[in-house]
Amino acid sequence: MTAYDKLTARFTRIATLGETAAFLGWDAATMMPPGGGPARGDQLAVLAGLSHGLLSLPEVGDELSAAEAEEDAADDWRAANLRLMRKAYVRATALPRDLVEARARANSACEKVWRDAHHKSDFAMVLPHLEEVVRLVRETASALSVTLNLSPYDALMDGFQHGLRTAEVADVFAGYEIFLRDALPAAEERQARQPAPVRPKGPFPVPLQEALCRQVSERLGLDFRHARLDRSAHPFSGGTRTDVRITTRYDEADFTQALLAVMHETGHALYERGLPADHDRQLVGEAAGMAVHESQSLIVEMQACRSDAFLSWLAPQLHKTFGGDASVYHVSNLARLWRRISRGFIRVDADEMTYPAHVILRFRLEQALVGGELHAADLPAAWNAGFKSLLGITPPDDARGCLQDIHWYDGAFGYFPSYTLGAMAAAQLMAAARRAVPGIDGGLAGGDLSPLLGWLRRNVHGVGSRLTFNELLQAATGKPLDPADFQAHLTGRYLA
Amino acid sequence: MTAYDKLTARFTRIATLGETAAFLGWDAATMMPPGGGPARGDQLAVLAGLSHGLLSLPEVGDELSAAEAEEDAADDWRAANLRLMRKAYVRATALPRDLVEARARANSACEKVWRDAHHKSDFAMVLPHLEEVVRLVRETASALSVTLNLSPYDALMDGFQHGLRTAEVADVFAGYEIFLRDALPAAEERQARQPAPVRPKGPFPVPLQEALCRQVSERLGLDFRHARLDRSAHPFSGGTRTDVRITTRYDEADFTQALLAVMHETGHALYERGLPADHDRQLVGEAAGMAVHESQSLIVEMQACRSDAFLSWLAPQLHKTFGGDASVYHVSNLARLWRRISRGFIRVDADEMTYPAHVILRFRLEQALVGGELHAADLPAAWNAGFKSLLGITPPDDARGCLQDIHWYDGAFGYFPSYTLGAMAAAQLMAAARRAVPGIDGGLAGGDLSPLLGWLRRNVHGVGSRLTFNELLQAATGKPLDPADFQAHLTGRYLA
Repeated sequence: MTAYDKLTARFTRIATLGETAAFLGWDAATMMPPGGGPARGDQLAVLAGLSHGLLSLPEVGDELSAAEAEEDAADDWRAANLRLMRKAYVRATALPRDLVEARARANSACEKVWRDAHHKSDFAMVLPHLEEVVRLVRETASALSVTLNLSPYDALMDGFQHGLRTAEVADVFAGYEIFLRDALPAAEERQARQPAPVRPKGPFPVPLQEALCRQVSERLGLDFRHARLDRSAHPFSGGTRTDVRITTRYDEADFTQALLAVMHETGHALYERGLPADHDRQLVGEAAGMAVHESQSLIVEMQACRSDAFLSWLAPQLHKTFGGDASVYHVSNLARLWRRISRGFIRVDADEMTYPAHVILRFRLEQALVGGELHAADLPAAWNAGFKSLLGITPPDDARGCLQDIHWYDGAFGYFPSYTLGAMAAAQLMAAARRAVPGIDGGLAGGDLSPLLGWLRRNVHGVGSRLTFNELLQAATGKPLDPADFQAHLTGRYLA
Repeated sequence: MTAYDKLTARFTRIATLGETAAFLGWDAATMMPPGGGPARGDQLAVLAGLSHGLLSLPEVGDELSAAEAEEDAADDWRAANLRLMRKAYVRATALPRDLVEARARANSACEKVWRDAHHKSDFAMVLPHLEEVVRLVRETASALSVTLNLSPYDALMDGFQHGLRTAEVADVFAGYEIFLRDALPAAEERQARQPAPVRPKGPFPVPLQEALCRQVSERLGLDFRHARLDRSAHPFSGGTRTDVRITTRYDEADFTQALLAVMHETGHALYERGLPADHDRQLVGEAAGMAVHESQSLIVEMQACRSDAFLSWLAPQLHKTFGGDASVYHVSNLARLWRRISRGFIRVDADEMTYPAHVILRFRLEQALVGGELHAADLPAAWNAGFKSLLGITPPDDARGCLQDIHWYDGAFGYFPSYTLGAMAAAQLMAAARRAVPGIDGGLAGGDLSPLLGWLRRNVHGVGSRLTFNELLQAATGKPLDPADFQAHLTGRYLA
C-alpha cells in the first residue's frame, strides 16, 4: 500500500462519517420532534470531534509528506486530491483545540441570542456576543493566515470556495456597483411602463403544490430513486451524491415560493448527483465550493427556469394543476411576476439585479470586521450608510438591516461573496453552454433541461474539486470569471 | 478525575455515537430512497468500527481495573454500571478482528440469499451460506464462552438479555409445553362454541388510520414532542430516549394490523421514554434487555389494550373514525377478532397462546445448531418434526417452516427466547401492578393507561439496566420469573 492509498482510505472513512452528519442535519431540519434537539447537538458534536480527530492524526502528516514525494504519473486527479488533503490537514491542525472549542461555544451562544434579538430588532442585546464571535474569528483567521500563507480574510473565504481572493472579488464587485448605478433606475423605469403582473388567486392546496414541485424537479432531471423532497422552515439541499435530500416550504396562499425554491434546490441536487463517482468520498470528488454550488442552483432556477422558454412549458402545467383563470398563467404574466425588480431591505427576498448589492455590502463590512477597522458596535451605522449608498434606501430598523442574516451571528465570515460569484458564474456558464449546445433553449421550451444538464455534467459536475473556481470557469468557458456575462444577462432580461 | 469518571465520559461518547447509528437505521427503514442503500451500509459500518474502536482501547481495560479497585460508597447504580462496562469491554475484546469481520460478511451474504430463498421456498439455495454463518457463530460462542465463563449458548443469549440462562429457560419452556397440551384444545373447543367474529368492512383510508393510530398512541402516553410515528415495511421502535421513532404499516382493507402494531411499538417507546434520565448514555441507564423490552410492548398491547376494559374505550373511537355498522365495533366482537386462537405456521401471525410454541421450537433448534448436535442441512426435517410435535401440524413448505424468520440467516442466535420470556414477564408484571394499584382496569376502561404506566415507570422503566431480568422481576413482583402468571392470564382470557 502506498502512502497515497493509505490516505485515500483514511479520507474515505472521514467522508463516510461526514455523510452520517449530513443525514442527521437533514433529519433535524425536517423530521426530528423538538424534544430531540439537545441530544442531536451532542450527536453532531461527537461526530465532528471524531472526524477532526481522524483528520489531525500525526500519521496523516507523515503520509502526506510521503505521498507528496511519491512518483506522480501526471495524474491530475491524484495531484488535486493530494493538494486538497494537505489543505484540509493544515486547516485541521492549524488551530489550537481551545480556540476551536471556544468558537463552537461562542457561535452557539451568539446564535441563540440573535434569534431573540432579530425578533425584537434589538442589536444591543446581541452585541456582546457578536463581539466575542468577531474576536475569535479574527484569532482564527490570523492563525490560518500564517499556515496557509493567505491574508486573514482570504483564509476564511478559501474555506468556503477554493481559490477565491479578496483582490479579484473586490474588483468584480466594484464593477458591478458601477453597472448597477445606471442599470437599476433604467430597469425600474422600463418595468413601470409595463402592465402590473396579476397574482394567481389561491388557495393552492399543499398536496397539489407538493405534487407539482416533485413533478417539476423530476422533469428537471432529479431521479427520485436517489432523492427526496420534504418540508423545512428554510429550503435547503442536503444528503449525499447517491441520496440527495431537498426541501421547500409551502404557503397555501401562494405557490411561488415553494416552486422556485424547489427549482433552486434541484439545481444544487443535480450538481451533487453529477459529481464524479470514480472519486466518491475523496475530497477531489466533492463539489468545488460554495460559489460553484450556488452557480448550479442559479443556472437552474434563474437562468433556465425563469427563461421565457421554460415558462412557456411551465404555464400550462400550472393551469392544469391549479385550474382557474388561464390568463394569469400566461408566460408574459409569469415573467412579470417572477422577474420583478424591487429595491428591498431583505437579501433573501431580493431580485437577481439588486441581490449583488446586498452581498457587496456584507463583503465590505465583514472584511472590515475581520481586519479590525470596524468594531461590532459600529455595525448598524455602517450597515445603514452602506445600504443607502448602494441601493438608495435606509433600513427602518436593524431587523431589516444588520440583524437579518444568521451568518455572522453563527460565526460564518467569508461566505457571502459565494452567492454573487455563483450568480455571475451561472450566467457565464449558461452563455458558454448556449454557444456549445444549440438545443438548450429548444429543450427548455419543452420542459427539457437535459441538453443543458449534459453540458453541465461534463464541464462542471464531473469535475468535482479537481479545479478551483477560476480554473473551472477557464476550462468550461474559455476565461476566468468575467462579470460581463452576468451584466449581459441582466441587460437582456431587464433592459432590452 | 477518577477512573470511573473517565469511563463514564468514554461510554457517554460511545452511546452518543450509537444514537447516530439508531437514527440512520430508522431513516433507512422509513425515509431513504432505494439508491441510498449501499452508501448507508458503509456509513453504519464506519460508525460500528469507530464505536468498537473506542470501546476496545487498552486504556479502557486499565481504567476498568482502576475503577473496580476504587472506593465504592455502596452505590448500586455505579456498581451495576461498572459490571456492564466490564462485560461490554470483555465482549468487545474477546473476539479476534478477523472473526468479527468474517461474521459481518457471512451474515450479510447469507441474509441477501435468504431473501430470495425465502421467496422461492428453496432451503438448498441458502444452505451453504447458513452453514458458514453457523460455523462462525459457533466459533464466536466458543470464544465468548471462555472469557465470560458461560456455556456457548448462554454467552450468546446473555448478549440479548443480561442474566438469561439455558437451564431456567428450558425448564420454563418444558412447563409451557405441558400446559399447552391441554390448554390449546380446550381453548379451541370453547372458541368453536362462540359466534364467529365479524370483520369490519373497509376500505379504511390510510389518513384516517394514521390519525387514529397517533391518537391512540398519544392516549397511551406517548408524547409526540419526543416521538414520531411513520411507516415501514415491518413495524419497529427506534431512536432514543428523548426522540423515539415508532413505525407501522397500513392496509386499506383492514386497520387491525396497523393499530395493534402501534399499540405494541408504543409499549416499546414508553419504556425508552421512561429510562432513568440521570443515567442517560450510560449502560446502566439503558433498557435492561430484549426480554424486558418485549415485556413492555406486550404489557401494553396484549395485557392492556386487548383487555375488555380498554376495548370498551376503543370501540366507540373506532366507530367514530370509520363509521358504518356500530355492531362490528362492539367490545364482544372486537374481543373475538383480536383474541382468536389459531394454530398456524407463521410466528409473527401467531396468537399469544400458540406463540410460545414457535419460540420453544427455535430455542431448541438453535441450541442444537450452536452445540453442533444439529447440522444446518438437517434443519428442515428437524423443524417440521418439532413443529408437528408442538402444534400438531406440519409446515407444507420451508417458506412456512425454517425459512420464515430472518434471525438465523442474519447471524442472530440466542434472541428468540426473549419473545416468550417477555410475554411471561408481561403477565407477571401486570398481575403485580393490579395488586399494587387498584385503578388500573378502571383507567383502561377510560382509555387511560396512566395508573399502569406510573407503576411501570417506577418498577421497570426507571430501573434501567441496574437489575438483571430475574432481579427486576423479583424487585417488582416479589419473585423471579414465574410462568404461572402467564398461564393464569391465558386461562382467564381463553378458558374461563
